[in-house]
Amino acid sequence: MTIDDLTNTTGEWLRGEGPDSDVVISSRVRLARNLAEYPFLSTASETERTEIYRAVTEAVATNAGWSDALSIDLTEADEINRALLVERHLISRQHAVGEGSRGVTVSTDETLALMINEEDHLRTQALRSGLQLDQIWKDVNEADDALSQQLAFAFDQQFGYLTACPTNVGTGIRVSVMLHLPALKLTKEIEKVARAARDMRLAVRGMYGEGTDAVGDLFQISNQTTLGKTEEEIISAFGRDIIPKIVEYEHAARESLVRHRMYQLDDKIWRAYGLLCNARCISSEETLALLSPIRMGIHLGRFSAFGQATLNELFLYTQPAHLQKRHGKPLEGEQRGVARAEHIRGVLSR
Amino acid sequence: MTIDDLTNTTGEWLRGEGPDSDVVISSRVRLARNLAEYPFLSTASETERTEIYRAVTEAVATNAGWSDALSIDLTEADEINRALLVERHLISRQHAVGEGSRGVTVSTDETLALMINEEDHLRTQALRSGLQLDQIWKDVNEADDALSQQLAFAFDQQFGYLTACPTNVGTGIRVSVMLHLPALKLTKEIEKVARAARDMRLAVRGMYGEGTDAVGDLFQISNQTTLGKTEEEIISAFGRDIIPKIVEYEHAARESLVRHRMYQLDDKIWRAYGLLCNARCISSEETLALLSPIRMGIHLGRFSAFGQATLNELFLYTQPAHLQKRHGKPLEGEQRGVARAEHIRGVLSR
Repeated sequence: MTIDDLTNTTGEWLRGEGPDSDVVISSRVRLARNLAEYPFLSTASETERTEIYRAVTEAVATNAGWSDALSIDLTEADEINRALLVERHLISRQHAVGEGSRGVTVSTDETLALMINEEDHLRTQALRSGLQLDQIWKDVNEADDALSQQLAFAFDQQFGYLTACPTNVGTGIRVSVMLHLPALKLTKEIEKVARAARDMRLAVRGMYGEGTDAVGDLFQISNQTTLGKTEEEIISAFGRDIIPKIVEYEHAARESLVRHRMYQLDDKIWRAYGLLCNARCISSEETLALLSPIRMGIHLGRFSAFGQATLNELFLYTQPAHLQKRHGKPLEGEQRGVARAEHIRGVLSR
Repeated sequence: MTIDDLTNTTGEWLRGEGPDSDVVISSRVRLARNLAEYPFLSTASETERTEIYRAVTEAVATNAGWSDALSIDLTEADEINRALLVERHLISRQHAVGEGSRGVTVSTDETLALMINEEDHLRTQALRSGLQLDQIWKDVNEADDALSQQLAFAFDQQFGYLTACPTNVGTGIRVSVMLHLPALKLTKEIEKVARAARDMRLAVRGMYGEGTDAVGDLFQISNQTTLGKTEEEIISAFGRDIIPKIVEYEHAARESLVRHRMYQLDDKIWRAYGLLCNARCISSEETLALLSPIRMGIHLGRFSAFGQATLNELFLYTQPAHLQKRHGKPLEGEQRGVARAEHIRGVLSR
C-alpha cells in the first residue's frame, strides 16, 4: 500500500453511514503516549528524536495489528502528500508542517492512525463515520494495549499517563466529534449551543481542529478535561449525553426550517447546486459552504440531484491536496480554482 | 386588440435585433405637446382635463395612422395592467399612478405610444430596439404631423412648443437610449462614462427613468436640452456621436474582460445561469442582475445554453406585472418570488 492508494476512496470517516450520520460526520478518539526512557520532544535532541521514531516504527512493524498498514516517513513526503493526510484527518496540521524525524502509520481502512513525534512521542487515533464512540474506543484501546506490550509508556501512579502538554495528562484521551450543524447556523442558534458546550468545558472548533474556522457549517466538539475521570466516563458523557443533545437541537432546527421557511430552505439548497454545476472558478471554502445545505437537503429528502456518495466525493476531492493529487501536478491561485470547478462539473455531469 | 394581447409578445423595443443591439437595448424619442386652447394640467380643472382627454382621443380615433391602435383609459385599468404598461415602456411610472382623466394609445407593434394627460396634454413616443434614432425620429415626426392637422398645439414663435415644464420648452423633444453596460460596470469605468455624459448635459438614469436605479447594468441616457437646437441636431448628436462613443467604450471593456479576466467573466456568466435554473424564490431585481452577464455572454459567444429570444422573454415576463398577468391573479411577497422562480425554471427546462 502506498500513499497514492489512499486517494482511491473517500475513507471510512467520510462514509456518512454511521449512526446519526445526518448530523454526526465522524467520531474520533486519540490517546497521547510517551516513551518512558526518553524526554518529551520539547527537550529531546535530534538524535533522541530519531531514536524515538525508530523505536516506535520498529514496534509497529512487528505488531500483528498493523501488519498491512501504510507507514509514511513525513520527512520524505512532499508538501501535497502531507496536506493530503491532513485533509483525510490522518495527521494534524502541526504534524504536517513540523520538523525532524516524524511519521504516521495508517491502517488500510484508515480507521486507525498512529502519529509519531507530533506533540507527544505517540498519538494513537481511531476514527469512524457517524456517532460510533464505543466502537472507536474499543479500536483505540486494543491498539494501545498491543503497543504497550512492546513499548514502555511514561506512566505515573498518581497522575496517570504523562504527556508533553499538561492538559493531556491523566488518561491522555481526546474525544472529538465532527458535527454538521447547518440548521442551527441558519436559525442563528449555533452560538447558544457553542456557549453551552464551552460552559461544559468542551472545545468547539472548525473542521481542521485548533484555530480553524467552521467552514461548511462543520464543527468539532471535543473534551478538554483528561484528568480525574476514566476514559469510559468521558466517552460515555459524549456518546450518551452531550452529542445526542446537540443532534436533537439540530433536528429541531431542521424541522422548524421545513415547517416555517421551506422556500428559503429549498432556495438555499438548489442555488448551491446551481452554483456547483456552473461555476468556472471556485475556492475549497466556497465548495464546502455550498455542499453544506445540499447535505442537509439530502437528509431531509428535499434534494435528489445526487446522493451522499457523490457529496462525499466532492467534499474530499475538492480540497487543495486531493485536487492537486488527482490533477497530477501542483496548481496555483486561479488555476486551482478553475481546475476545482472543472472537477465538480465533471462529477455532476456524469 | 386588448391590453391582454400585449402579453403575447415581448414587444418591438426588446427584440434585441436592431443596430448595435449587443449594447443598445432600445432607442426612444418623445415629443411634448399641449392643446393651445386649454391651460397646462397643473392649473386645469377636472372638467378641462376631461375635455382635453376627449379631444385627443377623438382626434386619434379618426386618425388614419392610429386606426388599429389600442386605446386604454387609465382610470379604468387596474393596477396590474397599469404596471404592465410601465414594464413595456409604453407609459411612465408617473402616468400609471396619476389621477384624473388620462390614457394611452398604443400602435399594434408598440413602436408608437401616445400618453394623454401625463405631464403635458400629449406625449407622443416612438420606441424601437437597437440604435435606430433616424427611424424613430421619422416615426414620431409623422405621427406628430398627422396629429397637428387635427389639434392646435400651443406654439410660440420665439420659444417654440410650450410645455408644462420649462425644461421641455422649444422642440419638446426627449431622446433617450437604453444601454446595457455590464463590462463598464465590472471594470468600474461606468462612473467615468456617466460623469462625461453629465458634463455634456445628458441625464443618466436607471431602466424606468427618473429616480430609478440602474438594475441589471441598464442605463438610460437622454438629452436635457430642448431649446436652441433643432430636433435633427439633437438626434444627430445622439446617434452619430454620443451613443457610438459609449458603445465603443463598452466594447473595449468587454474585449479587455475576455482578454485578461476570461475565467472571472465565464464564472460570472455561468453562475448567473446556475442560479436562474435552480432558485426557488427570486426577486425581479436579482433576475435582471443575473440576466445581465448572460446577455453579454450571448453577444460575446461565451454562453450558449439559451439565446436572445429566451433572454428577452425572461427579462420581461419576470417583471412583477407581467408575472402576475400570466399567473392570472395578484401575488404578494414570497409567493411572487416563488412563482417567478418557477416560471424561470419552466422556461429554462423547455
